[in-house]
Amino acid sequence: MVKVKVAVNGYGTIGKRVADAVAMQDDMEIIGVSKTRPNFEAAMAQQKGYDVYTLADRVGSFEEAGMPAAGTVEEMVQNADVVVDCTPGGMGEANKALYEKAGSKAIWQGGEDHELAGCSFNANSNYEKALGRDFVRVVSCNTTGLCRVISPLDREFGIKKVRVTLLRRSADPGDIKHGPINAIVPSPIKLPSHHGPDVKTVLPQIDITTTAVKISTTLMHLHTVNMEFTGECTAKDVEDVLGKQPRIRFVGQGITSTAEVMELARDMFRPRSDMWENCVWNESISMYEGELYFFQAIHQESDVIPENIDAIRAMMEIETNAEKSIAKTNKAMGI
Amino acid sequence: MVKVKVAVNGYGTIGKRVADAVAMQDDMEIIGVSKTRPNFEAAMAQQKGYDVYTLADRVGSFEEAGMPAAGTVEEMVQNADVVVDCTPGGMGEANKALYEKAGSKAIWQGGEDHELAGCSFNANSNYEKALGRDFVRVVSCNTTGLCRVISPLDREFGIKKVRVTLLRRSADPGDIKHGPINAIVPSPIKLPSHHGPDVKTVLPQIDITTTAVKISTTLMHLHTVNMEFTGECTAKDVEDVLGKQPRIRFVGQGITSTAEVMELARDMFRPRSDMWENCVWNESISMYEGELYFFQAIHQESDVIPENIDAIRAMMEIETNAEKSIAKTNKAMGI
Repeated sequence: MVKVKVAVNGYGTIGKRVADAVAMQDDMEIIGVSKTRPNFEAAMAQQKGYDVYTLADRVGSFEEAGMPAAGTVEEMVQNADVVVDCTPGGMGEANKALYEKAGSKAIWQGGEDHELAGCSFNANSNYEKALGRDFVRVVSCNTTGLCRVISPLDREFGIKKVRVTLLRRSADPGDIKHGPINAIVPSPIKLPSHHGPDVKTVLPQIDITTTAVKISTTLMHLHTVNMEFTGECTAKDVEDVLGKQPRIRFVGQGITSTAEVMELARDMFRPRSDMWENCVWNESISMYEGELYFFQAIHQESDVIPENIDAIRAMMEIETNAEKSIAKTNKAMGI
Repeated sequence: MVKVKVAVNGYGTIGKRVADAVAMQDDMEIIGVSKTRPNFEAAMAQQKGYDVYTLADRVGSFEEAGMPAAGTVEEMVQNADVVVDCTPGGMGEANKALYEKAGSKAIWQGGEDHELAGCSFNANSNYEKALGRDFVRVVSCNTTGLCRVISPLDREFGIKKVRVTLLRRSADPGDIKHGPINAIVPSPIKLPSHHGPDVKTVLPQIDITTTAVKISTTLMHLHTVNMEFTGECTAKDVEDVLGKQPRIRFVGQGITSTAEVMELARDMFRPRSDMWENCVWNESISMYEGELYFFQAIHQESDVIPENIDAIRAMMEIETNAEKSIAKTNKAMGI
């Protein structure tokens, strides 16, 4: 079998994880990753055996740092069937012409606008929309986490209304630039937040309103979810449906916080101690006055990674069935 | 005018603030405060001129520390018209027999059960219920903050349903015992949380469900509030009603977080940099699909303080009108 040639443009928080996840699959391979600076992440990429490319005007700085680049980003893109663009949010748009010129397909991340790709993707929600497409956007960590619970519950019971408060980590663990260190920041202050409309780029039929707050933590986001249904269901029915989902993990057994979820991921020897699944406290799943409530934790650095793999498979049409692609990705990654 | 004799049993976070607020009023006075340990707070109380009492078996330790006690808690209680019990949550119940024996009225804080006093109090919601009572419970900081917004909006428009997510500070600024330092803790995990039922001890007619999460911050709580009404109203109508409330402050002008709210309180030279009012981001007040959304910040150490003053006035019936008591308290404290 000829493997799909994947390039990762932007080897940062998401890019390095996508590269490693691609390398775990038997139907795709990494033909290169790109980096703008010859830092420790670039050095690690070379040590792992990835060809590291850079911008044409940065080739010299990689040379000087003793880690010569394999070539320019343009050269990398020309050799790729699919480029996964993991450049910082808002920067990916400028790369579209490059991908079009090279004739390579491209995946952007949730930091870019829906319109850039015209197709926003979550494997369990709308895999078939990405089949054969040249451009796809894998939605953000929070939107991915919401689609994973909304989509199956809507299919099963019919959703009338979703209300979510998103408690957002303010910085990633390796980030020393952002705050707050001791405050709660309504973000945005104007309500409702943009997260609801972002879910609708994947699930346009869902009536959802969201509020979001940034808080002094780095580990995970947490969602408090409230739903009303058009059909009848009990907390047990909801638990049964969520328990069957391929990327939802129930947590309990003394796991009372995001810190303990991350400790679990470390004990599992997950690469980078990542938690790719939504972590739902099944003890929290409650029906009260006809409305559902539950808590879920979302690992902002990694939950979109398996979704990127599925997006590649859908765009290349090497697997046309969502369930089969999800199962294949999960098996390869050990989910 | 004879001043009401007030004793504060437990001179900690709430107790020291209640004592200072009582001292600001012209119709009541502090006749003593109690402390179990001769620490810096006890020393500060003596420096301020308060008579400091202690438990009978602690008199010796105060003597040794060079700050002799004015007497025992029993003696203090016997001299008081009203004792404000600010002992740690759950400990106030054991003091009830003491107050009954001395024939003094007593106020407990939100950490005690409603049943202990039989009357849970918020000045703007149910002042008249406390008139002449011997025992009253001033509800917790979060419940106070919720009653202050729910009560006037229910009177004006009729509330059908309230849904709140409470983001709770995990420790007070002076507390070095509690965490988390970097995590989000659903608390309680079982939903809905006990905060909704606590609001109903003051406003039994309100249909409210709450979810609560502890986060890594010390400054303030933050509430994301969602309401449905039986009557018609716009965001502007809600803003007009909340803007007229005596203990609600609108924040904006570059105040984007709880940290900046606290900075404002410091710049106002408030005692202990306290913020006694609910701080509502009026920019956040929104109507979306017929439902109201807004954010408010609640200073956990101080929002109940003016409520304790009003409770004293109601119980002693020196003022039978809620609005007049609230206005008098606010004026004396500079709210």
